[in-house]
Amino acid sequence: MDKYVNPLKSRYASKEMLYIFSPKFKYTTWRKLWYNLALMQKELGIDISNKQLNKLSKYIEDIDFKVVEKYESKFQHEVMAHLYAYADLAGNNAKKILHMGATSAYLMDNTDLIQIKEALLLIENKMIKLIKTLKKFSITYKELAILAYTHLQEAQLTTLGKRSSLWLQSLVFDFKELKFITSNMCFRGVKGTVGNQSSFKELFSSNFEKVKNLDSNLAKKMGFDKVYKITSQTYDRKFDSSILNFLSNLAQSAHKITNDIRFMQHLKEIEENFEKHQIGSSAMPYKRNPIYSERIASLAKFTMSLQSSSGFIAATQWLERTLDDSACKRLNIPQAFLATDAILILLNKLFDNIRVNKKIIEKHVKTEMPFILTEDILMKATKNGGDRQILHEKIRVYSMQVKENLYSGTTENDLIKLILNDASFKLTSKDIDEILNPNENIGFASCQVEDFIKAIVDPMLENK
Amino acid sequence: MDKYVNPLKSRYASKEMLYIFSPKFKYTTWRKLWYNLALMQKELGIDISNKQLNKLSKYIEDIDFKVVEKYESKFQHEVMAHLYAYADLAGNNAKKILHMGATSAYLMDNTDLIQIKEALLLIENKMIKLIKTLKKFSITYKELAILAYTHLQEAQLTTLGKRSSLWLQSLVFDFKELKFITSNMCFRGVKGTVGNQSSFKELFSSNFEKVKNLDSNLAKKMGFDKVYKITSQTYDRKFDSSILNFLSNLAQSAHKITNDIRFMQHLKEIEENFEKHQIGSSAMPYKRNPIYSERIASLAKFTMSLQSSSGFIAATQWLERTLDDSACKRLNIPQAFLATDAILILLNKLFDNIRVNKKIIEKHVKTEMPFILTEDILMKATKNGGDRQILHEKIRVYSMQVKENLYSGTTENDLIKLILNDASFKLTSKDIDEILNPNENIGFASCQVEDFIKAIVDPMLENK
Amino acid sequence: MDKYVNPLKSRYASKEMLYIFSPKFKYTTWRKLWYNLALMQKELGIDISNKQLNKLSKYIEDIDFKVVEKYESKFQHEVMAHLYAYADLAGNNAKKILHMGATSAYLMDNTDLIQIKEALLLIENKMIKLIKTLKKFSITYKELAILAYTHLQEAQLTTLGKRSSLWLQSLVFDFKELKFITSNMCFRGVKGTVGNQSSFKELFSSNFEKVKNLDSNLAKKMGFDKVYKITSQTYDRKFDSSILNFLSNLAQSAHKITNDIRFMQHLKEIEENFEKHQIGSSAMPYKRNPIYSERIASLAKFTMSLQSSSGFIAATQWLERTLDDSACKRLNIPQAFLATDAILILLNKLFDNIRVNKKIIEKHVKTEMPFILTEDILMKATKNGGDRQILHEKIRVYSMQVKENLYSGTTENDLIKLILNDASFKLTSKDIDEILNPNENIGFASCQVEDFIKAIVDPMLENK
Amino acid sequence: MDKYVNPLKSRYASKEMLYIFSPKFKYTTWRKLWYNLALMQKELGIDISNKQLNKLSKYIEDIDFKVVEKYESKFQHEVMAHLYAYADLAGNNAKKILHMGATSAYLMDNTDLIQIKEALLLIENKMIKLIKTLKKFSITYKELAILAYTHLQEAQLTTLGKRSSLWLQSLVFDFKELKFITSNMCFRGVKGTVGNQSSFKELFSSNFEKVKNLDSNLAKKMGFDKVYKITSQTYDRKFDSSILNFLSNLAQSAHKITNDIRFMQHLKEIEENFEKHQIGSSAMPYKRNPIYSERIASLAKFTMSLQSSSGFIAATQWLERTLDDSACKRLNIPQAFLATDAILILLNKLFDNIRVNKKIIEKHVKTEMPFILTEDILMKATKNGGDRQILHEKIRVYSMQVKENLYSGTTENDLIKLILNDASFKLTSKDIDEILNPNENIGFASCQVEDFIKAIVDPMLENK
Repeated sequence: MDKYVNPLKSRYASKEMLYIFSPKFKYTTWRKLWYNLALMQKELGIDISNKQLNKLSKYIEDIDFKVVEKYESKFQHEVMAHLYAYADLAGNNAKKILHMGATSAYLMDNTDLIQIKEALLLIENKMIKLIKTLKKFSITYKELAILAYTHLQEAQLTTLGKRSSLWLQSLVFDFKELKFITSNMCFRGVKGTVGNQSSFKELFSSNFEKVKNLDSNLAKKMGFDKVYKITSQTYDRKFDSSILNFLSNLAQSAHKITNDIRFMQHLKEIEENFEKHQIGSSAMPYKRNPIYSERIASLAKFTMSLQSSSGFIAATQWLERTLDDSACKRLNIPQAFLATDAILILLNKLFDNIRVNKKIIEKHVKTEMPFILTEDILMKATKNGGDRQILHEKIRVYSMQVKENLYSGTTENDLIKLILNDASFKLTSKDIDEILNPNENIGFASCQVEDFIKAIVDPMLENK
Repeated sequence: MDKYVNPLKSRYASKEMLYIFSPKFKYTTWRKLWYNLALMQKELGIDISNKQLNKLSKYIEDIDFKVVEKYESKFQHEVMAHLYAYADLAGNNAKKILHMGATSAYLMDNTDLIQIKEALLLIENKMIKLIKTLKKFSITYKELAILAYTHLQEAQLTTLGKRSSLWLQSLVFDFKELKFITSNMCFRGVKGTVGNQSSFKELFSSNFEKVKNLDSNLAKKMGFDKVYKITSQTYDRKFDSSILNFLSNLAQSAHKITNDIRFMQHLKEIEENFEKHQIGSSAMPYKRNPIYSERIASLAKFTMSLQSSSGFIAATQWLERTLDDSACKRLNIPQAFLATDAILILLNKLFDNIRVNKKIIEKHVKTEMPFILTEDILMKATKNGGDRQILHEKIRVYSMQVKENLYSGTTENDLIKLILNDASFKLTSKDIDEILNPNENIGFASCQVEDFIKAIVDPMLENK
Repeated sequence: MDKYVNPLKSRYASKEMLYIFSPKFKYTTWRKLWYNLALMQKELGIDISNKQLNKLSKYIEDIDFKVVEKYESKFQHEVMAHLYAYADLAGNNAKKILHMGATSAYLMDNTDLIQIKEALLLIENKMIKLIKTLKKFSITYKELAILAYTHLQEAQLTTLGKRSSLWLQSLVFDFKELKFITSNMCFRGVKGTVGNQSSFKELFSSNFEKVKNLDSNLAKKMGFDKVYKITSQTYDRKFDSSILNFLSNLAQSAHKITNDIRFMQHLKEIEENFEKHQIGSSAMPYKRNPIYSERIASLAKFTMSLQSSSGFIAATQWLERTLDDSACKRLNIPQAFLATDAILILLNKLFDNIRVNKKIIEKHVKTEMPFILTEDILMKATKNGGDRQILHEKIRVYSMQVKENLYSGTTENDLIKLILNDASFKLTSKDIDEILNPNENIGFASCQVEDFIKAIVDPMLENK
Repeated sequence: MDKYVNPLKSRYASKEMLYIFSPKFKYTTWRKLWYNLALMQKELGIDISNKQLNKLSKYIEDIDFKVVEKYESKFQHEVMAHLYAYADLAGNNAKKILHMGATSAYLMDNTDLIQIKEALLLIENKMIKLIKTLKKFSITYKELAILAYTHLQEAQLTTLGKRSSLWLQSLVFDFKELKFITSNMCFRGVKGTVGNQSSFKELFSSNFEKVKNLDSNLAKKMGFDKVYKITSQTYDRKFDSSILNFLSNLAQSAHKITNDIRFMQHLKEIEENFEKHQIGSSAMPYKRNPIYSERIASLAKFTMSLQSSSGFIAATQWLERTLDDSACKRLNIPQAFLATDAILILLNKLFDNIRVNKKIIEKHVKTEMPFILTEDILMKATKNGGDRQILHEKIRVYSMQVKENLYSGTTENDLIKLILNDASFKLTSKDIDEILNPNENIGFASCQVEDFIKAIVDPMLENK
């Protein structure tokens, strides 16, 4: 307890995501990369025995981190340390075929990509769950009229399901970006020190086709459809930028969604689940603070701030590679994933147990309705033959006047009365009554939700 | 000259890009949106006469900005000001069908999207030109051996064409992102004040299909394949984030590419075109400063910094819309496009006239070659039966020793001699001579360039 | 109207700020720098005649931009172009003493610093006005009880003046930072091409004291107390970072303050001035949107995003100077100042005419008071001998229960009744009545405001 | 090893810095805050016994984290969990006086400030050490002529000590900012739930002076000179922005300095210490990669990216406090400090053992000198009566011509010959010989270093 504890680790992220970015995952992946390199080299004709391969295979999971540490303090070189530790276990004979033609970047870059791929898969699964939940929520509440707000001021009516379908849509955009990234993702493969595969040219007697096969066979073996045709020592750091852009975009969605939740919880229209025994505040125990939403918004700010780091790295790499990426990459990519993982856990938790206070929503609608329907009144009046611009100005003046009265203590909203009394609106009481019918005032909100889910969300969820 | 002059306007960006973000383009687009709204409404059965339409059509290009200004200072409302100015020209009869069911966001948001779409097209064209140039450059120099650098230290050899193919690849990634964005791009369409299309429901007697048709017909008319199924008052500001992410990514490529150029110009291996009469520096006239590259890097930093603004906007929109996006959107999106436009103009100019100093490149290669081929020596020795790890350590020790001597004034690099004298390397003079052949030391650089261009670049450029 | 129009120029910033970053200001400053350099050189013994000086002096304001443009298209060098244009006017004799020992950076860097200094002064004046206004506002409302919010949930009471004093305090922090920057600000002076003043060493026959005097005399002449002891070709770009940090910090204050205003305007407790004839929204004319606050928040996001650009520049300057700062500096610094200028104009406008709806504030307080005073009840109960932790748990349970009832339709808040009936609280009706007295529940809000203004604000405003 | 390991913790930061942000430090500080609150309350007349105080005092260091965890999983409230765990140890009697009038923010915010204060102190000490080292380095090399570079092109001469004094100056700017922050730093003190100290008003029978004393006595007790006069529930998050601005500024300095080092190491002019047994690269063992510099630059990028997070938090706090700061604050502030700590450790290590290759520096100077002295030639010629602008143009043309020849294979730099042969320069061989004297061509570099250190650095280091 006498060192910094990263709360992403101790509090927020899932075991699965923490594992992907763990030393155990990383270094067993290195051994898999060493083993599979030899295996694929053998398949392509290099003189490697099954006995040698078996020795490598046997010790993949068997990492003694103390031995590694000893070597690392000696060499000050992470890859060499792990290579020696692995070779110690595999024995002298296997040692000879270890790391043939390879460089540090073969281990490091490919492992980075494998970690990112696995992490994206976890994110994808959590996103699908969330999208399903929000789809259901949107359908359930597609007709529940609720006050819409523009400029944080009561505007017209929308429905709760329509509002939540917009949250859903934000996530759909993010999901599409995720699929775009994963469908384009490449393995770094075997490229050598400066990317020209010269050590492999040597090994395979200048046979380019064989080295291309080695590259793509290894990629498949490690779970990738594609391998970069060209790299420098490393894969282009722009790829990391695309990852942090995606995670930032998802964080933006989460920030926007939870800002809405927090405001609706202020209105008491919606409420996060509040667990028994939970203490909201030591001084104000009755309060129901939207703590999940606030935590999500907080983690989103962190994730968004990391975005610039990857752009800065990509922009300042020099020639075939400089190492001013490494320490930053160990911090920004894992933590952006861990924070996003936490955000999705919290969003799923939030929407699995959210409480909708229909009575309060209805009360708010009823109170404001006469006032917010001026647009519809204007439409009706225009339809009845009124001049839109003149009536628009009139209704503005009447509205101001009523507002002034209300601020001065009047309790009756007599806007409707004023309009009915003004002949230029050409409106009857019956017209007004029709307008004030709540079900008539949610526009196509409900149809839109159905249409959106059918056309966009359902096809996306097929087979998920 | 007594006000701030934005250099993107006065110096850097193209006329075409400046026009897209001009008042002229913006406000004629508004009039087109008004006119086409009426046209499509008529097609779907609303009672609108050709005479009314003709009046609107006639004045689309005819904007008197002084009249607009007068109205704006009166109403403090941009859309109203333009509506009145347009109506003044179109006359009372046409006025009645103007802006029917529409809101400010119909004009503003759709115009923003149209501007972005047009701007992306300009960017695409400039990118294609640049990609073609870099493709040609890469092919031309695919076999020209050049010192590769890692950590800014001489590493092995690569080829100039291989290095430039990596620049090309960065741009290919950006281009794919551009196509992803444009293929998913949607028109905002007619959605009403809070997004539920209630004014159009009224107009079209609750016929949702008709309003959907209105939406998609308008989209097509204004040049879009798709229209958002749902929006709030506005399209999701996450779209703007995706645009600024793309522009930042492209800026990152440009920054990386020009950093490489600047370093190579330091080595005198490559040189930007230097125009006659151009003064490099008042104090040091002989200098050939890489001023295009520096300007590109500078504009790239500006573009990258704008990225965070759109994320901040998207994350802090509240409910159906808040207006804390508008002023920022008028600054960050146009300027990110103008700066990117300038970057691409400069990159095209740079590569159209770049000078490659082959003799200097060759001289550098020759000087460093014996020294940088230790990896190949190691490979050969391993192949001849040596123990890789033991020899690796030996070669490290020898190299250090030679370096020490060189720093102390020795002029002869006797690394090769030391190796030949050490029997554990199992190497002959013939082995060494083969290794020191320059053509043997660029690995598969040339094949990779061909493979990359054939498999990735050419299909992308088809029909361009 | 066929080019991009920057809204900072056309809409938001003041004439004064736009002038500081204008070509007119910039290039007359160059001439002043040329003239004063000669003047100070003469004073320190260089052979320069009054006639020559008079020629230079005469044409300081007389810039023919067409002539300059002609030279610039020839030389592609901004400083040379202006030098030739100036020399053309001053004549051959004066020409000989022009730019003696100087380099481009003498003009450019010193002018940048002069512009920043002038711009900071404008900012300072607008900040002082705003601080005075907010001081007055805070005193006026120091005792007006208002609902405080934590987590956007009703918490205890505070006063409006207390809340506004926190806005004031944010600005006080910014003001201190401004004074810190200006008190440390240095002129770049005469430093030569790479900063070692070698051309001046030549001119002044190796007399370092004379060159130091030249430096500090010039600084004073151009309005600076201090001059950098050392520079490279340029002043350290970290200074620009400090400027953009300050402007971002001020933007953060503005964003926070206007977020609060926007929320309070949602509650109708406070209202921005709404001008006659102003159209809030074409569809919802009755609405009173907080448009100043939203615009401020929008410009603040832009300003904050620019912050990273200056850090990126400072971090990536190489050795004695690279030119990948220039284009970005022409964009980020002026625009950050213009946006900040606009923010302060709007904030001043906002607070000069803000409307406080006391009746609504009081109504809100009255409705929530019984509910939010559980902390005070707890204090009282503890004082009367109750066990804090036990009662805290009890009050939490009661509160939850009452909340549940209210959500289910109960209209009476019977929390007080439940507490009085529970003997472990040891509270009498009289105790409760005392607690519910509104004047008793604003804590020391009023005293704090007085104390803060007296101790912190007033001394700062002295002589302003 | 199956969870993410933050490399700041496992590899880079110091034990001391890791301790400041540890649970142990944090929660013992909470207990100190509880204990001292009671102690100061007693001093100001609250009925608290020494026995009670002693009980609290006794268990300050004695935290059983398992007990805390049990309570936290029950309450989901960190402060309550620690309060109960502490109270369990202190017993029923002491429990009564625990947390009197306090809220969670009393613990959290004050602890945050204490951590920041301690962390700044560590940073300050490491900065002083580094400044001393760089001062010594600058003095040692103040006269060592070295090629200066502008645009990454050889410009005139400077000295190594002059260049390093610019690095030093960057750190001096950062140091001044640090002192500005610490001299203005305030304790949050006792402010209550929404900042109005109402619980303390109750406790101290409305005596404001007593509560002010409580505030300032506590501040002193916890190591602060000053206490905020006003806060909301929390101290203004702008303070955190100022911290991250400072750390980003320092990171910018480090990035710039190490970019210079990396470039100089490319030139072999300077070299980082290379430890025995250290493996630079598995494939290229002879290489001496500037790994400290690269790691510093990498950590600097991370630190700089975190800057935006604190601005985003400060800008989006609503009213008396929202909790969308907390999770982010636990990540960005500690990690920015840990990364900065690592940067300073590495910078100190780097400069403690840096190697200067004088011979190589001299060789570079000698080779380029004739070429880079055109400015001095121009000065001399002007002094001898030549027309600066005409000669400037001539020298430009000659230089271009020589450059062209050199690129085409000529090996002799005959610029000097061309100038001597041109009578308009009015220069003799003797003039030229004087100009080419290396000691004459470093300008006032050496004097400047002395002057800067004496006037700026030494006073700053006094008593350190």
